Amino acid sequence: MGKPKNAISPTREENYPEWYQQVVKAADLAENTPVRGCMVIKPWGYGIWENIRDALDVMFKETGHKNAYFPLFIPKSFLQREADHVDGFAKECAVVTHSRLEADADGILQPAGQLDEPLIVRPTSETIIGELFARWVQSYRDLPLLINQWANVVRWEMRPRLFLRTAEFLWQEGHTVHSTAEEAIEETQKMLRIYADFAENWLAMPVLQGEKTVSERFPGAESTLCIEAMMQDRKALQAGTSHFLGQNFSKACGIKFQGVEGKEELGWTTSWGVSTRLIGGMIMTHSDDDGLIVPPKVAPTHAVILPVTPKEETRGQVLEACNELARELRDKIYSGGSIRVDVDDRDLRGGEKYWQWVKKGIPLTIEVGPRDLEKSSVFVGRRDLGVQRESMHHSEFVEKIVSILEEIQQSLYSRALSFREENTCEINDKKELYSFFTAQNQSKPEIHGGFALVHWDRDPKWEESLKNDLKVSIRCIPEGASEEGICVFSGKPSPSRVVLAKSY
Amino acid sequence: MGKPKNAISPTREENYPEWYQQVVKAADLAENTPVRGCMVIKPWGYGIWENIRDALDVMFKETGHKNAYFPLFIPKSFLQREADHVDGFAKECAVVTHSRLEADADGILQPAGQLDEPLIVRPTSETIIGELFARWVQSYRDLPLLINQWANVVRWEMRPRLFLRTAEFLWQEGHTVHSTAEEAIEETQKMLRIYADFAENWLAMPVLQGEKTVSERFPGAESTLCIEAMMQDRKALQAGTSHFLGQNFSKACGIKFQGVEGKEELGWTTSWGVSTRLIGGMIMTHSDDDGLIVPPKVAPTHAVILPVTPKEETRGQVLEACNELARELRDKIYSGGSIRVDVDDRDLRGGEKYWQWVKKGIPLTIEVGPRDLEKSSVFVGRRDLGVQRESMHHSEFVEKIVSILEEIQQSLYSRALSFREENTCEINDKKELYSFFTAQNQSKPEIHGGFALVHWDRDPKWEESLKNDLKVSIRCIPEGASEEGICVFSGKPSPSRVVLAKSY
Repeated sequence: MGKPKNAISPTREENYPEWYQQVVKAADLAENTPVRGCMVIKPWGYGIWENIRDALDVMFKETGHKNAYFPLFIPKSFLQREADHVDGFAKECAVVTHSRLEADADGILQPAGQLDEPLIVRPTSETIIGELFARWVQSYRDLPLLINQWANVVRWEMRPRLFLRTAEFLWQEGHTVHSTAEEAIEETQKMLRIYADFAENWLAMPVLQGEKTVSERFPGAESTLCIEAMMQDRKALQAGTSHFLGQNFSKACGIKFQGVEGKEELGWTTSWGVSTRLIGGMIMTHSDDDGLIVPPKVAPTHAVILPVTPKEETRGQVLEACNELARELRDKIYSGGSIRVDVDDRDLRGGEKYWQWVKKGIPLTIEVGPRDLEKSSVFVGRRDLGVQRESMHHSEFVEKIVSILEEIQQSLYSRALSFREENTCEINDKKELYSFFTAQNQSKPEIHGGFALVHWDRDPKWEESLKNDLKVSIRCIPEGASEEGICVFSGKPSPSRVVLAKSY
Repeated sequence: MGKPKNAISPTREENYPEWYQQVVKAADLAENTPVRGCMVIKPWGYGIWENIRDALDVMFKETGHKNAYFPLFIPKSFLQREADHVDGFAKECAVVTHSRLEADADGILQPAGQLDEPLIVRPTSETIIGELFARWVQSYRDLPLLINQWANVVRWEMRPRLFLRTAEFLWQEGHTVHSTAEEAIEETQKMLRIYADFAENWLAMPVLQGEKTVSERFPGAESTLCIEAMMQDRKALQAGTSHFLGQNFSKACGIKFQGVEGKEELGWTTSWGVSTRLIGGMIMTHSDDDGLIVPPKVAPTHAVILPVTPKEETRGQVLEACNELARELRDKIYSGGSIRVDVDDRDLRGGEKYWQWVKKGIPLTIEVGPRDLEKSSVFVGRRDLGVQRESMHHSEFVEKIVSILEEIQQSLYSRALSFREENTCEINDKKELYSFFTAQNQSKPEIHGGFALVHWDRDPKWEESLKNDLKVSIRCIPEGASEEGICVFSGKPSPSRVVLAKSY
């Protein structure tokens, strides 16, 4: 009994960008709305975000950070305080200019109550948070100040894509103040480790850790660290960033403190963030041509029980057994909480129902019908293994479900890591490099080379030509890389290899 | 050893509104910001909000609701679809008119990229959510649709007050669609019960449940249910509302479904919400002239251990004992989780440190010094009992802490309930009613009568004169009230008593 075709059309090979849109749709994660660039995150997508948020929140709190909530609006003059910063965001910000609507002579409602100073809907909050930190920080005793905010932000996007690039998105932004540069730099590294740990151990998404080049830094930062993941079309996705802001925002906002010796000093600040973009990364790391695959640790539901009720007379018995199984499974602990189980007893054809859950990427489907009751068995499907399903003894399955979920989590990570390794190579020749990013496989038009590790002399002009010639960027200078060599572009000395890729 | 004076000045009796501001400040809950009407919620305040959110979220999910996230912006034309609705919100909405900033001839950044249609920052989301629900609802099989959103909203406020009335606030808004009016009405009642249950059992804030009069309804609603609490100045605070929207928004947004018999029908919708205003209610229900009092169930930290270290040589020993005590306490379960304990070993004078925690309203302070170690005792302060503290045997305290916290929670509720009962009375005479709300106690200028239960013939003109004459409104028509009588204004028949009060 073969599967006639894939649940998602087109497939990844046929048209990767369109496949992505179809996976999001089939899994009922999110939709575009009539508000340009703004998406609605539907319950299954939001459930994933809640799990991401809760896991990160624990990690932030364990490292001494506290949550707070700052204003949505930033006065225009605040944004202008840091020159690079305003340059970076002025081109894409929503501007509030009025405080009410009023009927005009024709009875049509028009903006009224013009504000003295326009307000910007926060694209990020360094300047407004800096203003408040300047009040809170007086003495070295007030430091370090370690704050995080979960919030929505707005960056006007000309070419929005669900989760990857939307005008409004949800994120967290950490903001900290330290008394020394060393301590602030250590903080940016610590948070990068947390992001990498989370990406790998919760999203099962392997990431490279490194530093951005000067041209790719956050506007206003002294240095930007990042995690970069490889998607299945071999493009890179920047999945999180951590910025050392030096004293730039302290100067701009007046964050000063009395040091141990009584002298007034400027604070050293950091900021770091991840967003709903992580969901886009998760989708493109794991999903297949049958739809989404959600790693168990962030799945809103770990397992769905599907009652198979061909005959009315056994229906009650089957439903009862399904509910009893759900109770047994909910008593098991996985990843710090109860296993999340649903019984889907909707009045729908069994095949349709099963495929809905496959497309949603639920880690486990469990079908239970009259014959299973006779044999004390359950019919189990592991989403990471595709459509194959196997019959297991009821009690054996209950006993093993935790280790099965752990195995799925691990197998998704290993598969993604292998994929990245297969598509990463050291390149020592410019021609070879250009060919790596331009050679098109006729049957796979969506293939974009992969990650190329090349020696670079740190001259930005080569970065510029990479962008112009190949639409390739330097994703990061990997941490700890120290193998010296010869620049692939200039033949001059290079302190270490950097990672080149096309990117989202 | 008497306490020289209260930690909060002025006291409640001296100047209640100013006392409120000072309590918020002394507890470090929130601050005003340079963005007009927008507050920053600081870690202690946000910690309370996290506990409120998490507890309500469980209640919503247990009753079948799922979370989602909808756009921050609402096109002007959407808001206009429902006439009463736009009338209600047009006067107080932030309007986005531009999508970027651009330097003018003088190099000054000005709003640019004018939008074809202005966007409103959501004051509430009925119209944008209705637009999306119209897509999602096709058949009776899709109903009920039970969605909740945690989000920020903006309503331009001319006289903002921290937590009680701010331009931006955090809230949840539930939105549901049902196939019959009966089912939708039942939903509004169910959610009102949840709000009442939460207010009383988590915030220890007794509430009356009832229906708003026609003039106090949510703009666009057929009926609005509410919970009303009495603050310590005897004014009422509307703490949550639940609206039956009839088919008004279904008509406006096109939420239609194919009924069981195949006929196209309009959906019946509801919406319901509570906000960070609950924190304002909590503050004004329990706090005293020494500062905030937080009910244990929503306290970010249940108990703080304060090491008393007069001599350097015993310091290490005391700190070790404090940390060990913290571990013991964290093993105890209260209200579904571990007891939340901090050890405050900051280098601060003991008295100052103790009073900081009193002002923050932490349920328990635990002082431990060298003499306590000798006697195996701890010196415990219960915030609900004021400044009195008692020495308890270490192991007795560890054993009893859960029941002590339960006792505090209960005592706060009982005290608040007694206060409301003492300040609620039936009034059957108009003159007496006017005197109830105007008689000023010279020594207590902030006293505002209380709750008056009066018979009313349901004629809105009396409501109007109450507002004009006394600044008093009808807070609600209590549920289940059925005692008929004679209207205190007109002498005509009244179907039941209603609740009159001054309000926030």
